[in-house]
Amino acid sequence: MNNFVFYSPTEFVFGKDTEQQAGALARKFGAHKVMIVYGGGSAVKSGLLERVRHSLDAAGLPYCEMGGVQPNPVDTKVYEGIDVCKREQADLMLAVGGGSVIDTAKAIAAGACYEGDFWDFFIGRATVKTALKVGVVLTIPAAGSEGSGNSVITKTATLQKLSLRTPAALRPVFSILNPELTYTLPPFQTACGICDMMIHILERYFTNTPDVEIADRLCEGTLMAIMKEAYRVKQHPDDYGARANLMWCGMIAHNGTCGVGCEEDWASHFMEHEVSAIYGVTHGAGLATIVPAWMTFMAGHHPEKVAQLGNRVFSIAETDDKEEMALQTVARLKHFFRYLGLPVSFRELGIEHPDIDRLVESLHRNKGEQVGNYVKLTREDTRAIYQLAEV
Amino acid sequence: MNNFVFYSPTEFVFGKDTEQQAGALARKFGAHKVMIVYGGGSAVKSGLLERVRHSLDAAGLPYCEMGGVQPNPVDTKVYEGIDVCKREQADLMLAVGGGSVIDTAKAIAAGACYEGDFWDFFIGRATVKTALKVGVVLTIPAAGSEGSGNSVITKTATLQKLSLRTPAALRPVFSILNPELTYTLPPFQTACGICDMMIHILERYFTNTPDVEIADRLCEGTLMAIMKEAYRVKQHPDDYGARANLMWCGMIAHNGTCGVGCEEDWASHFMEHEVSAIYGVTHGAGLATIVPAWMTFMAGHHPEKVAQLGNRVFSIAETDDKEEMALQTVARLKHFFRYLGLPVSFRELGIEHPDIDRLVESLHRNKGEQVGNYVKLTREDTRAIYQLAEV
Repeated sequence: MNNFVFYSPTEFVFGKDTEQQAGALARKFGAHKVMIVYGGGSAVKSGLLERVRHSLDAAGLPYCEMGGVQPNPVDTKVYEGIDVCKREQADLMLAVGGGSVIDTAKAIAAGACYEGDFWDFFIGRATVKTALKVGVVLTIPAAGSEGSGNSVITKTATLQKLSLRTPAALRPVFSILNPELTYTLPPFQTACGICDMMIHILERYFTNTPDVEIADRLCEGTLMAIMKEAYRVKQHPDDYGARANLMWCGMIAHNGTCGVGCEEDWASHFMEHEVSAIYGVTHGAGLATIVPAWMTFMAGHHPEKVAQLGNRVFSIAETDDKEEMALQTVARLKHFFRYLGLPVSFRELGIEHPDIDRLVESLHRNKGEQVGNYVKLTREDTRAIYQLAEV
Repeated sequence: MNNFVFYSPTEFVFGKDTEQQAGALARKFGAHKVMIVYGGGSAVKSGLLERVRHSLDAAGLPYCEMGGVQPNPVDTKVYEGIDVCKREQADLMLAVGGGSVIDTAKAIAAGACYEGDFWDFFIGRATVKTALKVGVVLTIPAAGSEGSGNSVITKTATLQKLSLRTPAALRPVFSILNPELTYTLPPFQTACGICDMMIHILERYFTNTPDVEIADRLCEGTLMAIMKEAYRVKQHPDDYGARANLMWCGMIAHNGTCGVGCEEDWASHFMEHEVSAIYGVTHGAGLATIVPAWMTFMAGHHPEKVAQLGNRVFSIAETDDKEEMALQTVARLKHFFRYLGLPVSFRELGIEHPDIDRLVESLHRNKGEQVGNYVKLTREDTRAIYQLAEV
């Protein structure tokens, strides 16, 4: 086990009707003026935004707003938000939505306290030293941004989709998680969220760090819970218990609980970011395509941990043939994704002729000649994995 | 799943040599003068205390000290500490030790900010509104106090052993966990710690709250990790990887990660507190005696969750006879405890003639006519469980 710091200081308020506490929590964490950040129409139509406004009113907190954040959030919306925030002198960003909204709010929170271009943080030209506080009312369990210090933004001009990791400054001070808000998520979006949280776990699980039994067990346990509840939600989208379990799993998957002391991988995420940046697909659907291909490649190169996953999570019998165990694991995972209605190939994703040259070129330009840690992938390797994902 | 708040804002710094960061962390969290609280000779003899002093010196932080905290920590030491703290005007309590030292430091931290008697907090006469900050350098993975807001203190005059739960005010602001510090723990003390952390999990696991799959899986996974690493530590007390896993499991077992959204039980803990208060046994050893008896009682009254534990953690085959599954689970657990050198009955604990009348009387006087939640235990029930623990 490697040395590590685990610091997850967010106050998570979980359960029915908890969005009514938004105002009180913003006040508790020292807000004087709140900026509500939200996405499209669903937060408006469902009445959620109105309930959040009421809660702020009840707490005597003034607020301003910016809506219109889209999936795969972009830099232009961040610039717009920074302008609004500075003009209105807001001091707490309240994200009402899913990962795209939260990530946008975080980027605004950092950018509003910085004289230069906020994109500097994403390309490593500057580090976030101070940021406005961020609070969350979560509507989509998927990205785990409600419990992480991360943000992923795409630069429109270049289609660079980059991630920023600044746990200390950008972790939300509070996150409100009401599973009832997720009843109306369409099945495909629910499935994409389930895939996203599973892969957040697997990026940590696929490690060569020795002596990480507690990390492994927490990963495996969370994966088993996700899969069980995913079946239930597919059958009954308004099952509170199933939605509640999934919502908490999405947080656990990404706040650092899983993977403590491990060197993490993240190759699949970086490979998928190229796909969603160029083809505009939903991140979770892109992951459902890339990860089985990545795991198939690993079956032939470094099957051990894939085989352990198969044995402990998918009940695949332990044998000496780890490659075969790994391939069986891939088959089970694909079967599960298909059951959820997710694509498991570029073709199923609607990309008949992926421009693999461009994907590989862009990936290694953004992330260097070697990508990932479980196996350090060269251009040849990532090309092979993109090809495995074709059909 | 019940509504819940999860708030674990402690900064955990984990790994080799991390005690050297004590001074920098105390400074980061705003200390002006530190009060080091420690126990007997081991922190002195091992050189740990000296390294911590060096770290405070290097950070330019003045400090005072109070040593001599004993296992099953007592109120008299808290009063002494409050006097020292007030006289020296310390503003951060740095506990260097295990649960007894940390719990004493927390009680001092609360008592030093309160005009009345600190014991008021433990008997419910007052609530902790403000407290000095607490930092930890952990030497014994067991109590989980490094990540919790709890403190357990015994009143010497009456032998009342009571617990205080004030997560918001008393959670440590930082906890340093260096597994190397645990190499020299004697096997019995290591085993008692292992038992204590396992039971922290089981007190949460034994719940009737429906739809808690993620909580169950996190509990089960942590238990499996503990048992695997316990075998390794028994064979090789200076195996860093095994010690590291156990140390993190002890934290995870008690900071709230396990058991979110569950109505918890805690009957076994309360029943054991009476035993250790009256007979002065080590808490973990007392638990190894009480919990198998509690589970045996449950086999006949409410076996379902015991059977699930057996199936998922001890690989006991699923059958319709839940009582039989539960009894097999008890047998496996006892076998494991015995392997670690723990007593599993009053007789093995060295108490030939337990005064069960007194235990039952004291328990229900302290905790009310009904104890626990998985089954609400009457005097008749707790008597039956104490009797099951006799041999």
